[in-house]
Amino acid sequence: MQFHLNGFKPGNYQVPDAARKAYPIPPIEDLPREVDVLIIGTGPAGLTMARQMSEFEDISTCIVDMAEGPLLFGRADGISCRTIEIMEAFNSSEMVEKETYKLKQNTFWEPDTESPSNIKRTHKIADARAGLSEFTHGIVNQARLHELLLDGMANSITNLRPHYSRELVDLDIDESMTQDLGAYPITATFKRTDDAGAGKVETVKARFAVGCDGGRSRVRKSLDIALEGDSADKAWGVMDILLNTDFPDIRVKSFIQSKDHGAVMTIPREGGYLIRFYVELDQIKKDTRATDIKLTEQDLIAKAQQIFHPYTLDVKEVAWWSIYSVGQRLADRFDNRPLNSTDEVIPRAFVAGDACHTHSPKGGWGLNTSLPDTFNLGWKMAAVLQGKSDPKLLATYGTERRKVANQLINADRELSKLVATRPTAGDGSEKAQVDTAKIEAFMKRQSGFVSGTSIEYFPSYICTGQENQGLATGFNIGQRFHSAEATRVADGASQHLGHLVKADGRWRIFLFGGAQDPIQTTSDAHQFIDFLANDAASPVLKYTPKRSDFDSVIDTYAVFQQSDLSMHDLHGALWPAKGKYGLRDYEKVFHAQEDNDVYDLRGIDRDTGCIVIVRPDQHIASILPVTAHDDLAQFFDVFMIGQS
Amino acid sequence: MQFHLNGFKPGNYQVPDAARKAYPIPPIEDLPREVDVLIIGTGPAGLTMARQMSEFEDISTCIVDMAEGPLLFGRADGISCRTIEIMEAFNSSEMVEKETYKLKQNTFWEPDTESPSNIKRTHKIADARAGLSEFTHGIVNQARLHELLLDGMANSITNLRPHYSRELVDLDIDESMTQDLGAYPITATFKRTDDAGAGKVETVKARFAVGCDGGRSRVRKSLDIALEGDSADKAWGVMDILLNTDFPDIRVKSFIQSKDHGAVMTIPREGGYLIRFYVELDQIKKDTRATDIKLTEQDLIAKAQQIFHPYTLDVKEVAWWSIYSVGQRLADRFDNRPLNSTDEVIPRAFVAGDACHTHSPKGGWGLNTSLPDTFNLGWKMAAVLQGKSDPKLLATYGTERRKVANQLINADRELSKLVATRPTAGDGSEKAQVDTAKIEAFMKRQSGFVSGTSIEYFPSYICTGQENQGLATGFNIGQRFHSAEATRVADGASQHLGHLVKADGRWRIFLFGGAQDPIQTTSDAHQFIDFLANDAASPVLKYTPKRSDFDSVIDTYAVFQQSDLSMHDLHGALWPAKGKYGLRDYEKVFHAQEDNDVYDLRGIDRDTGCIVIVRPDQHIASILPVTAHDDLAQFFDVFMIGQS
Ligand SMILES: Cc1cc2nc3c(=O)[nH]c(=O)nc-3n(C[C@H](O)[C@H](O)[C@H](O)COP(=O)(O)OP(=O)(O)OC[C@H]3O[C@@H](n4cnc5c(N)ncnc54)[C@H](O)[C@@H]3O)c2cc1C
Ligand SMILES: Cc1cc2nc3c(=O)[nH]c(=O)nc-3n(C[C@H](O)[C@H](O)[C@H](O)COP(=O)(O)OP(=O)(O)OC[C@H]3O[C@@H](n4cnc5c(N)ncnc54)[C@H](O)[C@@H]3O)c2cc1C
Repeated sequence: MQFHLNGFKPGNYQVPDAARKAYPIPPIEDLPREVDVLIIGTGPAGLTMARQMSEFEDISTCIVDMAEGPLLFGRADGISCRTIEIMEAFNSSEMVEKETYKLKQNTFWEPDTESPSNIKRTHKIADARAGLSEFTHGIVNQARLHELLLDGMANSITNLRPHYSRELVDLDIDESMTQDLGAYPITATFKRTDDAGAGKVETVKARFAVGCDGGRSRVRKSLDIALEGDSADKAWGVMDILLNTDFPDIRVKSFIQSKDHGAVMTIPREGGYLIRFYVELDQIKKDTRATDIKLTEQDLIAKAQQIFHPYTLDVKEVAWWSIYSVGQRLADRFDNRPLNSTDEVIPRAFVAGDACHTHSPKGGWGLNTSLPDTFNLGWKMAAVLQGKSDPKLLATYGTERRKVANQLINADRELSKLVATRPTAGDGSEKAQVDTAKIEAFMKRQSGFVSGTSIEYFPSYICTGQENQGLATGFNIGQRFHSAEATRVADGASQHLGHLVKADGRWRIFLFGGAQDPIQTTSDAHQFIDFLANDAASPVLKYTPKRSDFDSVIDTYAVFQQSDLSMHDLHGALWPAKGKYGLRDYEKVFHAQEDNDVYDLRGIDRDTGCIVIVRPDQHIASILPVTAHDDLAQFFDVFMIGQS
Repeated sequence: MQFHLNGFKPGNYQVPDAARKAYPIPPIEDLPREVDVLIIGTGPAGLTMARQMSEFEDISTCIVDMAEGPLLFGRADGISCRTIEIMEAFNSSEMVEKETYKLKQNTFWEPDTESPSNIKRTHKIADARAGLSEFTHGIVNQARLHELLLDGMANSITNLRPHYSRELVDLDIDESMTQDLGAYPITATFKRTDDAGAGKVETVKARFAVGCDGGRSRVRKSLDIALEGDSADKAWGVMDILLNTDFPDIRVKSFIQSKDHGAVMTIPREGGYLIRFYVELDQIKKDTRATDIKLTEQDLIAKAQQIFHPYTLDVKEVAWWSIYSVGQRLADRFDNRPLNSTDEVIPRAFVAGDACHTHSPKGGWGLNTSLPDTFNLGWKMAAVLQGKSDPKLLATYGTERRKVANQLINADRELSKLVATRPTAGDGSEKAQVDTAKIEAFMKRQSGFVSGTSIEYFPSYICTGQENQGLATGFNIGQRFHSAEATRVADGASQHLGHLVKADGRWRIFLFGGAQDPIQTTSDAHQFIDFLANDAASPVLKYTPKRSDFDSVIDTYAVFQQSDLSMHDLHGALWPAKGKYGLRDYEKVFHAQEDNDVYDLRGIDRDTGCIVIVRPDQHIASILPVTAHDDLAQFFDVFMIGQS
């Protein structure tokens, strides 16, 4: 699909250029006085939090932003594989896949040793991120991702829509109430930012607040959370442009180092015409703000033209531009509790996304780290508010995500040095080669991190069973469940197992059967299912409300090696009766595929099989032997709350 | 994705059951007094016609239906590969792919020879339609397909929406005006069918009318078009139900023949719970209408229960049911012209879909033939109205589609006999086996027809060059361009070539290069492109308005065997400057893929290459040698109108 030929147009790319309109701004309505969850900011972190909460009819959520409506232009544009997996959990991956521009190649350009004022291609390589996921990372306007999340919220059971034109001016926590789960310890004060409402102040009481309000987070400041790390000393100009050029790699992601004028990174964009340029600017003084750098888009273009010499850049339109200067900084805490609090202290306010970690835009990590931040927090918040889990679960958000943010900061520091270094072409091609080759090596080494697929949480009570890792060497405990296909027994359809893990707050148990025939009631598999269905210690029985469907809290699937099974021969709990009619669910049982065997792909022990427990955020919580009924029970007993 | 657990709910399946609403009915507005194209009926034929016309800002279209709003339930549910390919041409395939239930298996059940009052599975086979297209046929509520077309119309440049609650009562053609293209020879009279407007009559004048008003078409009757063929002598009950059963193949498409009670065909449906049942009813008297058969859904259930013995059917909800009796009938003409008129006589009113061919529902052909009817007519209508093509093009609609309808009627006659035959189980299992085996053989033999991929139009001036078929044995002239992937030279991205053929009224030329290096200006490929770009005889130059983009009427792509090409070395017309900025289009040139070589897949002559001309409806119009500049020019000269 091609678009933007006659100029960049924001809005839904499924609508032709000439008919496309910007995403609608909902009419202004008063803020609610009390909510369960108050979210500040409608960037990727805030919208993902809201999208997750919107799934739950029994939780009231309010999301606000000081902007007058949804984002239209610019900012991040790289969508990692892991982000698309998360969008699939929200049932919205296909438009991301369809609209994103797929980067297949990288090229590297350096000063020509013969004539160093000219640039010359040193090498062209395939993008290193292929095969890490069933999805392919791609490039698209950040606003489009926002719109898909907004669509999902609007279409959800709660019909959730943001309140725009509201600036948070103060966030207060009544410390005397924080350990009372039912209380509303948060008081947030907002100022209307639209002309019609100018000066109007609104106050919202909340049980929990999540600050997704970006790099200059007021929530973070209100909570007195310190940002540690380096302040910016390097500025980059970024612009989305339409241009003509004789530069041959204009539709390939390129790193271009000039001899005397700095570096440019180009990223071809969705629609076939748009290109993003990152232009290296001069060293800046410590603590200079990007807004203090008095450059225009014309300066950026002029700079890029120097760097591209001898190629010409004939820029026809600048769709968006910005000067972007950020140091690598990390919040010392991700919630309101004092440093080194124990898990037993209930946090009531959180920071997520750019509000707790800032870094340069070059790795494409801002959006792709911010969105998973709240994908981690969202299900925990829901589980606590719905009385399914102990509030201590909320403390794991900070532990888990601060680890990732820390990795991110370190990676960004490394990459920033590599990309901004000027090669000294005079020293001969050998040395110059090494420079871009280092970027290439970095990209390869970090591909799992860059694509988000190797993000791994610390061992904890929701990341356990490391001693059983050998039972399924390709399902890494703490990492996301790496999807693979299997064939549904009832109808022969092929199913990506990972896509069964939807963002509906449910836990999943995957039983991978061993060599025994699962029809035999004596088999481990049958006994395991029978334990879940009938034993007083079964977490399914203990933690599912009596009137709810069998799979509504813990959703169990079975995958077998035997391909000649019939549903009716298997334990009835594998095709449970559900809903008001008691209809049988035929979509819980699978067998491995001949050419694409999940046992091979994920190193599952064919003899004994195993149990894989998957969290609502798709991360693997534990691996257990099929016979470990007690261990399974204990796993859930640590944090789940019994239901009646 | 699972849905309908607690009862069938119409509307967008992307919205959760509990939040889903029926597709909105637009507010009633007066009909326009004059339009270019008047479409009667909002079934698949009418909506596809409207969807196609909605792409063109300079054509006014009006589509009406006597129903009070969009379809919600029932009717057809099989979506063939070809239908999904057409939806891709409208840029809407991904939701069809996502929402349709994929049938992978068929089972056949017959009276058990040991105990003939019981049924027994005779065999289970894989569905025969795999691999005929990059898309997989699937099952979904016809209403969902309508909704995707309605969405596309609403999002188009013309924002087209149907007028509901309007019954066509009369369609009149002023014969004295039919050969004047600019005239409005059609006068259509409508009666409001809603309570508020009851009795109100509206009149619309139109340049062209398309009757997509179903089996009892008033347009057909107004035009005095005769339906030939058999009237119904067989009725089927059809129902979409939610049930529990111990029948083991309930999630597999099954043909079930009982000894004494007739036959049932079951089709598992989208969402995991719904099932469609076709229940054979008794022989009926000639010319009995389905509405005269006084059976209720309870009768259908009782009948099915008898057939399924010894299995039980515990039906919890009947979402939709109908008695369906149709003979195989075919209209003698598909437009208003007298039989045997020459092409030179301009037709002004057309019939399409069920209005000109009716048949039984069992093959799943109604929707899948009706939709391509108007996909064939739509681009021709646009080309004539826009002054791009000679009006004689419109006469080819009837010739091409009546051939297909005829094939359909014959296939349906054959299938109806096979499915309705009762085996005489007493005769022994051998004979019984043959009966369902015949259905199986029929399905295999007809798989290309059933999936719509082997539909082939007669040789004509828009289906020519049969003598060159050997240059690309896998691109069958007259059939749809069978898509295959190739790699885009500019960025290494993989592209399905067929998906470049969007429903935008443009012709496509695919140049498949031979062994010569296309960089050489002496190569056939370079010379061919140069002919298109610079020769006075070039159809691109002759038929493209001077101020329009180079590719706006005839859109040319090149595929080469050489994989080390650079865009900047190729003829400039292969990366043409377009739009108000003169931006270069980098998405016209491809190279074959190593493991998935389009030359191998489609039998393209590696030595000489070839030219494939593809019509706006994706059918292959011609194959030519790369050197046949004159033939190419002549092909278009037959029906295109020169532009200035
Ligand atoms: C100007 C700019 C350019 C960027 N360019 C790039 C880039 O080129 N490449 C790249 O990868 N990343 C870029 N980023 C970073 C990327 O967009 C972020 O990493 C990502 O959006 C972080 O998501 P978030 O949800 O944490 O915060 P944000 O997306 O920053 O969202 C924060 C939201 O909070 C709102 N807000 C802030 N304060 C208040 C308040 N007091 N009251 C109410 N609402 C408030 C803001 O209006 C904003 O909508 C850029 C960011 C900015 C701001
Ligand atoms: C009751 C029923 C059950 C069916 N069941 C099956 C099935 O089980 N399996 C299967 O494969 N196919 C089935 N079909 C057939 C399938 O739906 C059709 O083949 C397909 O819809 C044909 O599409 P069409 O656009 O030609 O006509 P239709 O879909 O029939 O659309 C015709 C439209 O024209 C409108 N219309 C008719 N007369 C007028 C008028 N005078 N003024 C204004 N509007 C008018 C109608 O309201 C209707 O919306 C069924 C059809 C019907 C009617």
